[in-house]
Amino acid sequence: MTKLLKLPGLIDVHVHLRDPGATQKEDFYTASRAALAGGVVGLVDMPNNPAPTINLKRLVVKKQAAKKSVCDYGFYFGANQENWKDFRKVFSQVFGLKIYMNHTTGPLLVEDLAVLQQHFKNWPQSKPILVHAEQDTLAKAIGLAACWDKWLHVCHLATSEELELVKKAKQKKIKVTCEVTPHHLFLTKDEVKTLGSLAVMRPPLQTRADLKSLWWGINKGIVDLIATDHAPHTLKEKQSSSPPNGIPGLETSLPLLLTALNENKITLKKLIELTSINPAKFLGLKSVKNSWVEVDLNKKWIIEQKNLQTKCGWSAFHGRKVIGKIERVFLRGKKVVENGKIIVKKGFGKPL
Amino acid sequence: MTKLLKLPGLIDVHVHLRDPGATQKEDFYTASRAALAGGVVGLVDMPNNPAPTINLKRLVVKKQAAKKSVCDYGFYFGANQENWKDFRKVFSQVFGLKIYMNHTTGPLLVEDLAVLQQHFKNWPQSKPILVHAEQDTLAKAIGLAACWDKWLHVCHLATSEELELVKKAKQKKIKVTCEVTPHHLFLTKDEVKTLGSLAVMRPPLQTRADLKSLWWGINKGIVDLIATDHAPHTLKEKQSSSPPNGIPGLETSLPLLLTALNENKITLKKLIELTSINPAKFLGLKSVKNSWVEVDLNKKWIIEQKNLQTKCGWSAFHGRKVIGKIERVFLRGKKVVENGKIIVKKGFGKPL
Repeated sequence: MTKLLKLPGLIDVHVHLRDPGATQKEDFYTASRAALAGGVVGLVDMPNNPAPTINLKRLVVKKQAAKKSVCDYGFYFGANQENWKDFRKVFSQVFGLKIYMNHTTGPLLVEDLAVLQQHFKNWPQSKPILVHAEQDTLAKAIGLAACWDKWLHVCHLATSEELELVKKAKQKKIKVTCEVTPHHLFLTKDEVKTLGSLAVMRPPLQTRADLKSLWWGINKGIVDLIATDHAPHTLKEKQSSSPPNGIPGLETSLPLLLTALNENKITLKKLIELTSINPAKFLGLKSVKNSWVEVDLNKKWIIEQKNLQTKCGWSAFHGRKVIGKIERVFLRGKKVVENGKIIVKKGFGKPL
Repeated sequence: MTKLLKLPGLIDVHVHLRDPGATQKEDFYTASRAALAGGVVGLVDMPNNPAPTINLKRLVVKKQAAKKSVCDYGFYFGANQENWKDFRKVFSQVFGLKIYMNHTTGPLLVEDLAVLQQHFKNWPQSKPILVHAEQDTLAKAIGLAACWDKWLHVCHLATSEELELVKKAKQKKIKVTCEVTPHHLFLTKDEVKTLGSLAVMRPPLQTRADLKSLWWGINKGIVDLIATDHAPHTLKEKQSSSPPNGIPGLETSLPLLLTALNENKITLKKLIELTSINPAKFLGLKSVKNSWVEVDLNKKWIIEQKNLQTKCGWSAFHGRKVIGKIERVFLRGKKVVENGKIIVKKGFGKPL
């Protein structure tokens, strides 16, 4: 028996759309189609492209590339060794500053205290400083945020220790928000055996105990939002001898979460809060008006790679049985997805 | 013309006395003689011996070794990968917990977030957590202290960025204190040319701009105290192909500071505050009663290695012209130094 439900459209604050510079993996058109197919009506792209978003000129190029989108979109600015001088020029056009504080994909690592202090000093308080800061590096990021009184957003929080630290920081009224990814909520290091190099990512997949504490953190209100960290690579790249970090996630996040809802791991209220209400708040948007997703909560189906919209064409969740299917998606009042088909033209997306 | 002045006896909260385990460099008797010769009536020994002070048994052995002292003394406990369980046993017998958060001398490095959190969680608030945390590692230490609401003491703060971070932390009411060493106040990386491997230390000697900002931090009240980080090694060790970190400092600190007083780089009030009043407060001692140092502020002399009490027998300040000489030292009412001679017997020192 079908059990239809209307959810507010999802907002994904953490995606890597590879455009321009690595469009063999993905581009704004294919990624935004994947987004809509997954119920995601708005997304924000990360700056660590081969030509990273580190100055106004690059941001202009990025905006041009994004015009292909079928869903709504936004951008972050990437910190490098010197570009705090450019904050004034770009601040109004981006949703936050991203700092890569650990070695990861792209050339944007910032470790030096003097440089980090310039970024924390010069970035205004009203928008977040998003950090890739794993384990002990997270303590460093929180220290800087506490001293400089800035809004820190912890990307892809993945371990129980990180969760404990964020919990303490919130108790001490340090302005910290955090996100978790679907892959850290539904996969553990045990799956590396079957997934092989497809499971290579940063932060890596963790233990079952970590996964459990993330769910605990969700239900205790410590986790602020769910973001996919959609990071597509071609299958060839992932199966090479030096596989790049990351997996796609835009199309599989909501079905996985609906399955968790079915299993009583999360309430409907919390699911909506973490995928739509809080991400919208995070971006300073009023709310997701006139955009919704119609799902059948009872529909059982199997995630299959061949049905994906993402250009990369594979999923770490291929073959997984899920309960809950997206039937229709509406963006700004217009039906954009029906029965897995994207029924809207290239360029329908607007800046968030 | 002599200009006699009575200063309260100095307290040095950061020394490495090498006893037991490396007494070819120094021991409690020779180091405490050096202390008294430098006007230091009380000192606290660091735990990173070859057999580090990481459990009650080691602390008992350490206390036994310290009975040779001619000045008063105390101890810190060293954090390792698991010994937070022992805090209850040792807490009342030590002045703080030392955590080595960077690679330095000894086997006590702690970098892992889970382990660090156990230490910050379990160490009581009433005594300091002292950290070796250089540059960006300092942000990490401050983050942990802010989240866990513990008293952080920054050892040998050495750079302008570190000073700026501590200044911000204090403004945000995070409980942080900090010390600077005489070598970072009177030597820069320029001196490495003449000193060679004798100048190998952690944190390393910095730029003239850093040195200037430390003096600025002293006069602005950001720096809480001066500690020598007295870290003797034999000349042979220092001149080897892999020279160990550290230099002796107990005997040269006060003459250097008196010279700075003469040059109006520091006020007398501030000098007393940083070398005696604040270190006593830091250790939870009432004050340095009945212990004082009589100095001749006008006496010009030259620091010479051959006159040193430290077993290592050398100084990075050898040959330096100074103004201000220690004439007599009194400990607990008794004269213990006269004209550079230690006139008190082995074992005169008591636990602080």
